[in-house]
Amino acid sequence: MNSDQKAFFAEPGTLDMSDYVVLDYFFESTVEPAEAAAHLCQEQSTAQWKRVGVDEDMRPRHAAKVIDLIVERNPAQPCIPFQIEAWTKLWACRVKIAYPIRNIGASIPNLITAACGEGAFFSPGIHAIKLHDIIFPAGYLEQFEGPKFGVAGLREWTGVHHRPLFFGVIKPNIGLAPEPFRDIAYESWLGGLDVAKDDELIFDSAWSPFEKRTRLLGEARRDAEQKTGKKCCYLANITDEVDRLIELHDIGVRNGANMLMINAMATGLSAARMVRKHTEVPLVAHFDFVAPFSKSPYYGVHSRVITKLQRLAGFDAIIFAGMGARMKTYRSAVLDDVKACRDTLCPADAGCPVKAALPVPGGSQWAGSLAPLHQDIGSTDFAIVPGRAVFGHPGGPRAGAISLHQGWDAIKTGVSLADYAREHQELAMSIRHNTQ
Amino acid sequence: MNSDQKAFFAEPGTLDMSDYVVLDYFFESTVEPAEAAAHLCQEQSTAQWKRVGVDEDMRPRHAAKVIDLIVERNPAQPCIPFQIEAWTKLWACRVKIAYPIRNIGASIPNLITAACGEGAFFSPGIHAIKLHDIIFPAGYLEQFEGPKFGVAGLREWTGVHHRPLFFGVIKPNIGLAPEPFRDIAYESWLGGLDVAKDDELIFDSAWSPFEKRTRLLGEARRDAEQKTGKKCCYLANITDEVDRLIELHDIGVRNGANMLMINAMATGLSAARMVRKHTEVPLVAHFDFVAPFSKSPYYGVHSRVITKLQRLAGFDAIIFAGMGARMKTYRSAVLDDVKACRDTLCPADAGCPVKAALPVPGGSQWAGSLAPLHQDIGSTDFAIVPGRAVFGHPGGPRAGAISLHQGWDAIKTGVSLADYAREHQELAMSIRHNTQ
Repeated sequence: MNSDQKAFFAEPGTLDMSDYVVLDYFFESTVEPAEAAAHLCQEQSTAQWKRVGVDEDMRPRHAAKVIDLIVERNPAQPCIPFQIEAWTKLWACRVKIAYPIRNIGASIPNLITAACGEGAFFSPGIHAIKLHDIIFPAGYLEQFEGPKFGVAGLREWTGVHHRPLFFGVIKPNIGLAPEPFRDIAYESWLGGLDVAKDDELIFDSAWSPFEKRTRLLGEARRDAEQKTGKKCCYLANITDEVDRLIELHDIGVRNGANMLMINAMATGLSAARMVRKHTEVPLVAHFDFVAPFSKSPYYGVHSRVITKLQRLAGFDAIIFAGMGARMKTYRSAVLDDVKACRDTLCPADAGCPVKAALPVPGGSQWAGSLAPLHQDIGSTDFAIVPGRAVFGHPGGPRAGAISLHQGWDAIKTGVSLADYAREHQELAMSIRHNTQ
Repeated sequence: MNSDQKAFFAEPGTLDMSDYVVLDYFFESTVEPAEAAAHLCQEQSTAQWKRVGVDEDMRPRHAAKVIDLIVERNPAQPCIPFQIEAWTKLWACRVKIAYPIRNIGASIPNLITAACGEGAFFSPGIHAIKLHDIIFPAGYLEQFEGPKFGVAGLREWTGVHHRPLFFGVIKPNIGLAPEPFRDIAYESWLGGLDVAKDDELIFDSAWSPFEKRTRLLGEARRDAEQKTGKKCCYLANITDEVDRLIELHDIGVRNGANMLMINAMATGLSAARMVRKHTEVPLVAHFDFVAPFSKSPYYGVHSRVITKLQRLAGFDAIIFAGMGARMKTYRSAVLDDVKACRDTLCPADAGCPVKAALPVPGGSQWAGSLAPLHQDIGSTDFAIVPGRAVFGHPGGPRAGAISLHQGWDAIKTGVSLADYAREHQELAMSIRHNTQ
């Protein structure tokens, strides 16, 4: 390592870490790890640190710096089958990089550019790289609004305490006119569904205009509240072009949609933050366009990072890929996302000025999904978000919603699902429907 | 294949293709291809196509439909080492899916949700999937603004005809105060640089406030125009939170920045479209946060798709990963991006209502990059975007800019770079600097 490369390393304790976010990458290199890590810092910060013919150095104030570098192994074969040509030796490493906040400010697009931009993904000698985590100093986080409600506020908003929240995706998701769409949502509320939600694929369309849909469902959920004496929520999807988001927020809220969803990565995290600054109701993120860059263990960006950024952008609840064969997601990755919603975003056990978001691991759930999730998460602070188990329940959406409550009641009373189903027919039907 | 699955297939000629965008995927499945393709269509459209107990079917109007399915091979091993558990046989396929425009409208976030969302990436039996291309009907494209200037308009705007455009990234990219930053940009304009640009990592910072930077560089580029008699452009980076983009556009344009850059995927394509509707100057996209999902041959989204969407969002020039070892990008992928900038976005040779964008393959370029790029692209309609070759040139930025012109003059006169350098010292220095 030459002296130019050494300038991209910092001794522990020499940096004021309140001035840095920490980027935690896996990488595999074909050059010595220290050289590769120095390149990585250089490319993502002070690519050229002086003018020609001037005695100056931008690196002390503006360079990204290696604060930890571990060589995990020397693989016999490259971990990805692309981006690599000649090599004689491979190093699989984990590196922590202190990135100067003065370069980027409290801006999500700027942060993404630094952490996931050209510099990080086109660094000499590194063919495989994945951003695994970001850790923030508290002072930086204080410049973000974060969730307006958070988990505690969301429980107050929905009136649901001491158990997981039951979201349900109104189905048929596409093609149904607002009137029948309202009717099935209404049925689900009568069955006790907490949050009847738009599918991520329903937008403001000629066959289901957002104004009409939210008006009918807003009325219906208030009727259901009257009838059940219980708070009912309608989560309307405002995903659309960015210059329509505030308009759709306002229409939705005025019409009685009391939670709003944004397909976060498809719409843009910064656009979501814009809505957060304006919103009067809880915001929920859906996980479209996350899998394409988060699924490879060796390349891309870990979903945990995106979950943290969604929380930073201000989502009160975050839907992400959950358990189950269809979701093709490692159990550990699901629990990483749960932690990213709830744990501190700061180092270790430091206090976190950003509220927790409610984790909503999604994907083909039903009453039977509650027990394993509850056990894995170790808390009732989560939601499930079934579609077919409520709106495809053979007894209709009301029975579908009831079956979720029965599933939870079985857990509470310490009875097996099969036993509890003997005297609860909605659950019995649901077991047959989901385990056939 | 059962009758429910058959409903997700369309016979050729039976669909009015002006109502559909065509999504072209590679996938590898562990179930029969027709079954896998039907699942894929179902998941990304009418997941549940009827209410319980109602005789109805949303699929004729709202289902995504397979219009072409080719089994390319039966691999002996899975193409990706994750997301796959048990399998007995594998099918590697290419499928074209007609996606109903009535589901999504002319909205980029909605389109991304449909094409790259939960449905596409969590489909039963499919462990590997990559969106390779999107083809649009002309009537759909007419609902987008597209580039305001396009290639022809950009040539008029910059006054550069009959040769590639020379962009240059002002370096040191980070840490330099506006005054010296201005001075080196000014030098590069005097040397004939067409577009001196902000690095993608320079934002609105305390040490380089956007207002001051654009004011100083706006004045300097007009001075340079006076002095050289040639149009000079300053491309300022307005990347920041979405709710600041219009403000930064207005400040920049008022101060004399006559082109604006947005780190498109880090900021959001839809936010870029919002700026396009407002802009008075050409817009340029930078390629941060594209590699993480586009590099694997077997998983994610091809960069060609993102290039097309950036053009749809209204960028006049698109910087993407270009040739050369550092960029780790297949030559064919670079040329795919070039085509996505320039060719029709419609089927085959149909007319395209969206203007062409200028392709700017980036990455460690210099005068010597011109000849191979010119040959590969087969046209002068492109730009190079060196940093170090201009602003790290041993003779300074003016000499660096001159060396680019000399490199092009060598091509024009049919002389080798080495021969031409004998009587052109800036080029000679550049050759030594870049091939040492």
